[in-house]
Amino acid sequence: MPHIALPEGMPGISAGFTYRPETAKPMRELAHVLLHNANSLTPGERELIATYVSSQNDCHFCQSSHGAAAACHLGDASVVEKVKADFLSAPVSGKLKALLNIAGKVQKDGKLVTAADVDAARKLGATDLEIHDTVLIAAAFSMYNRYVDGLGTWQPRDPDMYAQMGHHLAAEGYIAPSIRQPLQTA
Amino acid sequence: MPHIALPEGMPGISAGFTYRPETAKPMRELAHVLLHNANSLTPGERELIATYVSSQNDCHFCQSSHGAAAACHLGDASVVEKVKADFLSAPVSGKLKALLNIAGKVQKDGKLVTAADVDAARKLGATDLEIHDTVLIAAAFSMYNRYVDGLGTWQPRDPDMYAQMGHHLAAEGYIAPSIRQPLQTA
Repeated sequence: MPHIALPEGMPGISAGFTYRPETAKPMRELAHVLLHNANSLTPGERELIATYVSSQNDCHFCQSSHGAAAACHLGDASVVEKVKADFLSAPVSGKLKALLNIAGKVQKDGKLVTAADVDAARKLGATDLEIHDTVLIAAAFSMYNRYVDGLGTWQPRDPDMYAQMGHHLAAEGYIAPSIRQPLQTA
Repeated sequence: MPHIALPEGMPGISAGFTYRPETAKPMRELAHVLLHNANSLTPGERELIATYVSSQNDCHFCQSSHGAAAACHLGDASVVEKVKADFLSAPVSGKLKALLNIAGKVQKDGKLVTAADVDAARKLGATDLEIHDTVLIAAAFSMYNRYVDGLGTWQPRDPDMYAQMGHHLAAEGYIAPSIRQPLQTA
């Protein structure tokens, strides 16, 4: 049960976003820039980084919704499960593995990232902007995960609900108040 | 040394903000809403929560700059040190202690927050919005701290520099690109 009087029937972060639109606006915008806007990392790669960090933080809502968005972008849900279980043996590029290594360190503590971690990513083709965005995606999901869990939000267990959410996020991104639309049209 | 080619001579988060203005915009706006806009929690109380979380995350830049902003708002730097060392014995209200307890749990893992933690805060006068914002300040600083440390930013050790920064942040908030102004007027 949510710790505060969040709007009922809204899953995960959408309840917090509806409760406090002033903070929702920049939080949605940050996710949109990091995950949806044009970037040399594909949306699928960036959603995989977000999903991996959310999985390491054991946030059911975020790993399920962003995992579904990643699966939608990549056309393959099994890659998502493999990245979560052991990204080093997952069927993704060496560059993405090196970036996931950096993301996993940021998830624990930014100070764990070493020059060697960054050099390894660079040698596999990562640009400075890709390294920057990887650090920030991992940092931002350390926020989103704590927000969703710290408010005690409702986190559905129905995979179909997340699949639907993932399709919507993959297509529309994060700025449009998509999850509120059913309420507004009611 | 920074892990990527950040602009030189800019301390902490300002280097990341200058490097990537698209992500800086929502990150600044979120901090401004949470720490500077009108709220039933004073700016000093909110800066104390941000400082405490940054101190638990051992982020030198964030705990120093926000600690200086808190000291400026409160007119007393010793409170900041006492909150960082042991907030339960610090000269702050019972309500703020209960909120710092929630913030400390969110800093570790949002799932650690219990109904009893929230009830305790509510009994000492905390509103739902104050509890929401405490959770989000703690979550957001779990992001800012990891971003600052994960990029390997330059974090000056000169307390006078942070005192100056604290005065500026307390007066102006987070939206104005304050730290870039000296470069622009050069």
